Amino acid sequence: MPHIQLNNDAPGIRSLVLYRPDTGKPLYELAQALLRAGSPDSTLSDAERELIAAVVSSQNCTDFCLNSHAAASRFLFGRQADLVDQTLQDPETAPISSRLRALLAIARCVAADARTVTNELVEAARQEGATDGDIHDTVLIAAAFCMFNRYVDGLATLTPDDPAAYAAMGERMGTLGYTLPKPN
Amino acid sequence: MPHIQLNNDAPGIRSLVLYRPDTGKPLYELAQALLRAGSPDSTLSDAERELIAAVVSSQNCTDFCLNSHAAASRFLFGRQADLVDQTLQDPETAPISSRLRALLAIARCVAADARTVTNELVEAARQEGATDGDIHDTVLIAAAFCMFNRYVDGLATLTPDDPAAYAAMGERMGTLGYTLPKPN
Repeated sequence: MPHIQLNNDAPGIRSLVLYRPDTGKPLYELAQALLRAGSPDSTLSDAERELIAAVVSSQNCTDFCLNSHAAASRFLFGRQADLVDQTLQDPETAPISSRLRALLAIARCVAADARTVTNELVEAARQEGATDGDIHDTVLIAAAFCMFNRYVDGLATLTPDDPAAYAAMGERMGTLGYTLPKPN
Repeated sequence: MPHIQLNNDAPGIRSLVLYRPDTGKPLYELAQALLRAGSPDSTLSDAERELIAAVVSSQNCTDFCLNSHAAASRFLFGRQADLVDQTLQDPETAPISSRLRALLAIARCVAADARTVTNELVEAARQEGATDGDIHDTVLIAAAFCMFNRYVDGLATLTPDDPAAYAAMGERMGTLGYTLPKPN
């Protein structure tokens, strides 16, 4: 049961943006700018951006965001979808690029305590080909999911149990991106 | 030294929104919606909203956000400005309303681990007169500052030392709200 009367039965973040479109609009615009458009000099694919969001949501134990963004990442990776679960299990050994692995190490520090992002971690990502845009977008995706996760959990929004519900969400997110849901 | 080339010498979040106006725009719109406009049924003043932001930034040890939002809160509290430092020192004993004290307890749980926001904490805030809008806005302000704090710290943006710099920022934030800075 959500902590406040949301007047809709949508799950997770969708129930909150339907309840409060004034804050929902900039939240979805931020998600679209970060998870789809990205920095002009960024090399991160949409599938990789969704994977960073899923890894941070896993670290914060927010099942709704973890399951929905993992599903979006699987949809966008297509034939390489197995990378998502391999990375969620262990980003150090998953068969992802060294560049993405170095960026995920930064993302995990941002989520734990952003003051622990050292020059060495940033330099290691650059050595693997990460651009300033990649580093910026990684830090802000990780920071933004520390917000989304807390917003969804702090108000105790609905978290579906059915994996099929997330697969449908992931396909919608992968196809349409982040557009405000319409009230029923 | 910031971790990436921001091409400006503004401090904190301002350097980041100048560097990336595409993400800066929704971030400032979110701040304006949360710290100024608020929910239609909310009883929180702008000074109280800034104080919630300062308390969370203090918990996350992000000096730039702590000092600037504390300064905005002092400016907006006017003759009651001492409440800000009393609350930052100890929210349990500061001479603030019981309603704000109960909401700050929720905000601190959101920042630490949002899954610890219990029905009891929410009910305690309601008993002190908090509305659904107050609870929503408190949770989202706390969550949003977990993002802003991590964005500012994760990229190692400039943090001025001079208290006068923050007093000027606080007056500007208290007067103009959150509008994107113009490039020099």
